[in-house]
Amino acid sequence: MPGGAAQHGDLGRLLIRCQDGPGIVAAVGTFLAGAGANVVSLAQHSTAPEGGTFFQRTEFRLPALSAARDQLQRDFAEQVAAPFGMDFTLREASKPLRVAIMVSKTDHCALDLLWRHRRGELPMTVAMVISNHPDLADDVRGFGVPFFHVPATRDNRAEAEERVLELVAGNVDLVVLARYMQIITPSFLDRVGCPLINIHHSFLPAFIGAGPYAKAKERGVKLVGATAHYVTADLDEGPIIEQDVVRVSHRDAAGDLARLGADVERAVLSRAVRWHLEDRIARDGNTTVVF
Amino acid sequence: MPGGAAQHGDLGRLLIRCQDGPGIVAAVGTFLAGAGANVVSLAQHSTAPEGGTFFQRTEFRLPALSAARDQLQRDFAEQVAAPFGMDFTLREASKPLRVAIMVSKTDHCALDLLWRHRRGELPMTVAMVISNHPDLADDVRGFGVPFFHVPATRDNRAEAEERVLELVAGNVDLVVLARYMQIITPSFLDRVGCPLINIHHSFLPAFIGAGPYAKAKERGVKLVGATAHYVTADLDEGPIIEQDVVRVSHRDAAGDLARLGADVERAVLSRAVRWHLEDRIARDGNTTVVF
Amino acid sequence: MPGGAAQHGDLGRLLIRCQDGPGIVAAVGTFLAGAGANVVSLAQHSTAPEGGTFFQRTEFRLPALSAARDQLQRDFAEQVAAPFGMDFTLREASKPLRVAIMVSKTDHCALDLLWRHRRGELPMTVAMVISNHPDLADDVRGFGVPFFHVPATRDNRAEAEERVLELVAGNVDLVVLARYMQIITPSFLDRVGCPLINIHHSFLPAFIGAGPYAKAKERGVKLVGATAHYVTADLDEGPIIEQDVVRVSHRDAAGDLARLGADVERAVLSRAVRWHLEDRIARDGNTTVVF
Amino acid sequence: MPGGAAQHGDLGRLLIRCQDGPGIVAAVGTFLAGAGANVVSLAQHSTAPEGGTFFQRTEFRLPALSAARDQLQRDFAEQVAAPFGMDFTLREASKPLRVAIMVSKTDHCALDLLWRHRRGELPMTVAMVISNHPDLADDVRGFGVPFFHVPATRDNRAEAEERVLELVAGNVDLVVLARYMQIITPSFLDRVGCPLINIHHSFLPAFIGAGPYAKAKERGVKLVGATAHYVTADLDEGPIIEQDVVRVSHRDAAGDLARLGADVERAVLSRAVRWHLEDRIARDGNTTVVF
Repeated sequence: MPGGAAQHGDLGRLLIRCQDGPGIVAAVGTFLAGAGANVVSLAQHSTAPEGGTFFQRTEFRLPALSAARDQLQRDFAEQVAAPFGMDFTLREASKPLRVAIMVSKTDHCALDLLWRHRRGELPMTVAMVISNHPDLADDVRGFGVPFFHVPATRDNRAEAEERVLELVAGNVDLVVLARYMQIITPSFLDRVGCPLINIHHSFLPAFIGAGPYAKAKERGVKLVGATAHYVTADLDEGPIIEQDVVRVSHRDAAGDLARLGADVERAVLSRAVRWHLEDRIARDGNTTVVF
Repeated sequence: MPGGAAQHGDLGRLLIRCQDGPGIVAAVGTFLAGAGANVVSLAQHSTAPEGGTFFQRTEFRLPALSAARDQLQRDFAEQVAAPFGMDFTLREASKPLRVAIMVSKTDHCALDLLWRHRRGELPMTVAMVISNHPDLADDVRGFGVPFFHVPATRDNRAEAEERVLELVAGNVDLVVLARYMQIITPSFLDRVGCPLINIHHSFLPAFIGAGPYAKAKERGVKLVGATAHYVTADLDEGPIIEQDVVRVSHRDAAGDLARLGADVERAVLSRAVRWHLEDRIARDGNTTVVF
Repeated sequence: MPGGAAQHGDLGRLLIRCQDGPGIVAAVGTFLAGAGANVVSLAQHSTAPEGGTFFQRTEFRLPALSAARDQLQRDFAEQVAAPFGMDFTLREASKPLRVAIMVSKTDHCALDLLWRHRRGELPMTVAMVISNHPDLADDVRGFGVPFFHVPATRDNRAEAEERVLELVAGNVDLVVLARYMQIITPSFLDRVGCPLINIHHSFLPAFIGAGPYAKAKERGVKLVGATAHYVTADLDEGPIIEQDVVRVSHRDAAGDLARLGADVERAVLSRAVRWHLEDRIARDGNTTVVF
Repeated sequence: MPGGAAQHGDLGRLLIRCQDGPGIVAAVGTFLAGAGANVVSLAQHSTAPEGGTFFQRTEFRLPALSAARDQLQRDFAEQVAAPFGMDFTLREASKPLRVAIMVSKTDHCALDLLWRHRRGELPMTVAMVISNHPDLADDVRGFGVPFFHVPATRDNRAEAEERVLELVAGNVDLVVLARYMQIITPSFLDRVGCPLINIHHSFLPAFIGAGPYAKAKERGVKLVGATAHYVTADLDEGPIIEQDVVRVSHRDAAGDLARLGADVERAVLSRAVRWHLEDRIARDGNTTVVF
């Protein structure tokens, strides 16, 4: 994406979180202005009128950002973050995150991410696709992306996770579970060293667990949906990033729900991934702030 | 609605349910044609390709339907329903159902039903509004509808239900719980003699029980919704008639969810009531067929 | 709304517009911090990466804002607005805008605004409702709002506008055309001295002019919609504030489109009015920025 | 799709249109029952309460339909269609329509159709993809579908259309214009011998002609959409099959509208094509009935 690199060359993104209080916006704004940066976009959020948590996302342009970044980070840490007790991340938009996609047999989410990436919609590097089935090898490699087959069953879970960790640890900044139908263990989460985004095929918290479309058909709901969330040790309980639904009726069999829901799944997952790549998401306990 | 009466004077609606099998559509069509009726609208549904349950809704015009109705019903029962083992209802569109609305303090659903009725959108007679609070008396009576205050608390539930039963039993064909915040007991359901439609302020089965907006805020969902369902002895588990959702974000406090959700609640409830009044809903176990 | 007054007592809103350039966010943030204000919410927008127009909406808390407001305005004008060539408005959230609602016979939009206001959803004072028909007098006065009947026809337009101007000029900060079916002349717009928001019953720019639902039926569209926009001298061409749609089908007659569209109209209009009352809307040429 | 063939082997679809009048439903039902067919699904529509046009779609199962089909068609024509003055089509669900997809450079609609077809969502045979650019050859052939490059410019239109006609005439039952950016001439429509479905990238009738997203940005609309319609000699004026929209804001540049709209385009086009393939669409003047 050389055009993107040119366009984003001097674009930086600063995401902060701290205890709310007076003077934060002014301090950040003054720091950036003093560094010669022009604020392109700014959004902030407080979780309560008084005494809440404060979040701010700032996009700015700074000539020769790449050379200046490390010094900028040190100065911000010392001059702003420390006095306000802030967590922060400072990223260059021109340095795309490295992503691993994990998928089982159902292809719609993984292929949609690869297609959107090729089209220039997702500013990332797809480092690899990992699957517990060999079926998608040709499709994935057709996009010029490495494909690794790591068989995973109930019986070899520890071994398979070890193999996946060897592939991704240190090599990627994000793992996307694009309909990967194996359990992720707490041990894996501890060791993977980057966040995971999962797509669940229901509007959580409805229909937690396996077979949500069959459960939806049985309950007779008039909408089915999908949920993209960060993965935590509690299955299907992680912070929700995005959700959407589609209307269904008594005429739709469980298979129709799966077909209609698949469109929602790929749309919801691609939005969540895009927002993560653009540093739009902050975690607030078990919920998310999406700027 | 004299215009409506004129317009609907000869319009009949036949709703049937039976074991699926060959010849049903032909038998019903032939019966109606033989009776001099013209089919205006017809929809049907089978729950399975083979051996399922068959549902059909037919609207037809028959000159002087009102005079002919009883004989038509007897003939249909004998000539069609009996051979096919059918349940059926035959109704004249010009005879609106009699409805009681029950409401606590939250007014948006009840007032919306009254306003839509005045506007001609809901073909019903509103026999009465019953509330466990006196607050809405003036608003309701402003629409020319009787208002009855039946105080209900945890302590006098049996007494209050008795009083409500005296008011509605035999007097109405449908009870609508338009944000009525008291438990309905199985004993009440046994004795009321007509269906009840409730609006629940979440997209069931998520957030069953009390306080769904607070639960939704805590879980961090990105959509909140509402569900209209028939009331059964299992709280919040009755057959779903209609659902809808609205998008929310981290910026919305629990109060905003309640405000945004209120619009969905009144829209969903009014659609469900309208469909019931138009004989569009058939029950299929714990789900609904909505034609 | 005494609770609201207490809650909003110290809440101020600053809306600015100027040529984009470095240092604006810092200058505003530093000014507010220096004045002792705490930024509660901030959003900004630039129309282009370089050399565009810059918009910012800031909500802040300042103890004893009401007493300090005039001095704050003078200081901001001198210290920030002048150097950056800014347009700005500074408002206290506790001082609700005064609103006149104009309506013809169709009641759903006007009654919905009155009902939402009573419910506490719209922070405004409804100074009056003006109609060219007497029909809604009782409904409006039931909400405790003055109702004025100003007959208007093609023949007495100048006279009628004169009478409306006498009622509203100087008395209101906003006029809402809630299905008011008379032409508004450029002369009226020149003299009214405040903005007007209109609801058009189609998703503009489709079906400009009269009878949009009939045109929609004839064209066979599968969605109908509504558009809230500021009124300009060009009929149906003013800046769009909000739009929404609802799905329709071949089964819906033009009357059904009007019924289904009415729900969209009242929802869209109430959102646009709310956003205006909360100082969320900035005009950018013939379009709007909605924070 | 051998599974599909097995499943659909005995499934027939009858689509009829005639002047409304009594006895049609009974006549069709009786005919099918007499032929040994079981009605699986039936829907009908009248354009007016009295004297309108009548449409009916019937799905039925008939053992050994394939062998019986020609005789069934002759019998129906003589016994039912002739007396009622009906147009009708009788098709076997197991015989998928043959489809040609035409596309220029923008790939999302064409690739989505190919992917949905591979997934089993679209019961068709993709006979070929024709493009005026060579870019998509590899992607298309990766799906096992023939790709033909027919360069088309303003200067060689007649020649190019001739070449396309040679490829498709007699070989396909439907042409899908999946973002094919060349004008289709009336002469082509006269000679192609099958219907054409086009996807237009706006919610028609708004933004007719070229560059709809740029026009939408300029007008400041809050929703952008897409429209699938049959192609007629009047550009962008053919019968609408399906439409949908997506919310946009002032933050979205024209390029964002194109990106967001692309998702709507592919969803809308795939629904329209699916409905056509399932014989769900009847034309009613310049509008459609979609069962």
